[in-house]
Amino acid sequence: MRDVEEIAKKYFDKSVTDRERAIFEGAITLGALYHQFTGTPVSRDPRVIQALEDAMERSMALQPYREKVEVKIDAQVIGRSKRHPYDYETLRGSMVDAKVQTRYGRTRAILRMRHVPELRYTLMYIEKVEEI
Amino acid sequence: MRDVEEIAKKYFDKSVTDRERAIFEGAITLGALYHQFTGTPVSRDPRVIQALEDAMERSMALQPYREKVEVKIDAQVIGRSKRHPYDYETLRGSMVDAKVQTRYGRTRAILRMRHVPELRYTLMYIEKVEEI
Amino acid sequence: MRDVEEIAKKYFDKSVTDRERAIFEGAITLGALYHQFTGTPVSRDPRVIQALEDAMERSMALQPYREKVEVKIDAQVIGRSKRHPYDYETLRGSMVDAKVQTRYGRTRAILRMRHVPELRYTLMYIEKVEEI
Amino acid sequence: MRDVEEIAKKYFDKSVTDRERAIFEGAITLGALYHQFTGTPVSRDPRVIQALEDAMERSMALQPYREKVEVKIDAQVIGRSKRHPYDYETLRGSMVDAKVQTRYGRTRAILRMRHVPELRYTLMYIEKVEEI
Repeated sequence: MRDVEEIAKKYFDKSVTDRERAIFEGAITLGALYHQFTGTPVSRDPRVIQALEDAMERSMALQPYREKVEVKIDAQVIGRSKRHPYDYETLRGSMVDAKVQTRYGRTRAILRMRHVPELRYTLMYIEKVEEI
Repeated sequence: MRDVEEIAKKYFDKSVTDRERAIFEGAITLGALYHQFTGTPVSRDPRVIQALEDAMERSMALQPYREKVEVKIDAQVIGRSKRHPYDYETLRGSMVDAKVQTRYGRTRAILRMRHVPELRYTLMYIEKVEEI
Repeated sequence: MRDVEEIAKKYFDKSVTDRERAIFEGAITLGALYHQFTGTPVSRDPRVIQALEDAMERSMALQPYREKVEVKIDAQVIGRSKRHPYDYETLRGSMVDAKVQTRYGRTRAILRMRHVPELRYTLMYIEKVEEI
Repeated sequence: MRDVEEIAKKYFDKSVTDRERAIFEGAITLGALYHQFTGTPVSRDPRVIQALEDAMERSMALQPYREKVEVKIDAQVIGRSKRHPYDYETLRGSMVDAKVQTRYGRTRAILRMRHVPELRYTLMYIEKVEEI
């Protein structure tokens, strides 16, 4: 429904461009992904990793103006499991490489979150913004 | 490794029985499930629901002494989607029916979380404890 | 350290403006706030509400380029407590009014999250962007 | 209201003792604490730490049959902050020492979560169960 979008738009500063809006929407998803799923138990088992990636991608793609959400969890940084009952890890931002693609009007934005070794930090950044 | 289990056991009160331990371990998972996943975007789309159920089951089954974790998300209580960009919901405890089966020594415990209409509350309870 | 900021900046699309960056950083915090704290037990007790507001404000203000984070939890929409052990609620987005102020270069952005009755939705929006 | 407690009790296995119930209720809180708050930004600033400890204690004390919840976040394991915008950490289980005291009928249980160096694991355990 067009109407709902028009109502929502009234709340935004009038100076906001389509580029800014596309960036805004995707950045919310990066913050959401990190803070919703950090702490979830995880192991190297490919079925566990696949299930988590799918849940992260499909749930976050429901948010408005998201075209695509891609999540890769790096199994290499997870220790080998499961030799004893306490042998598993919990999801940290540094294990996750996420790409969120949004579209608003004629702008497409690609936002990214991944561990940057030279910063020792899980950086969220604006990878690309383009007119389409 | 047997050793790790022995080290962990030293920290527990000596009077704790196998029954109590099986209940303890499963109850942690109920608290974890609720507080890890509440707030995740969700819709009636069966692929979204399946992905979330899988992630909840497989991640939580990694915790110690869990034999099985079963999660059902009730699509009926989720509104019909997706007529406009803001038309989706976020996961609430009342949408979830979860069963956690633990085993410790000779005891098996089945712990449950589900919405109880007569209480208007998402109740966590001990459904069954048995010797095996 | 200026250096770290320069390294981080390399990862961003070269076309990104200070305005866009200020919006980006604040939007992350909105997503983070919602998905980190939704589901936390809450009651009308002013000490509980104050503690949650403080934790949300102070933790989120640590993220980069945030100048101020203000959180109000609406006690009015929380039922009267605590007549029996199951009588409390858990935090929903609709209870929260949050304002995130960021600054990047010469731009200040004010981002907002609050329940919008006419949308029946907890809307996140860009309230104001200004040069300073 | 006594009534609500009686209704809730019907759902529990009839063989469950007061000891088991006290343990069950506290274990839920340990799982909840870990999975609700892991990932929250944190620094060595005592006001940040205090705010988080208060929020964790007061929100979790609302759950049924909890008498007391005590949370200590270990500032020593958090790096010195805040030399640049990316210089902060996020809460990990290993930073937290939590004690949950529950009472059900004539039993009091003290449940604990803390990092155990010899296990390299944030162990949740039953510290003490006593009749009162």
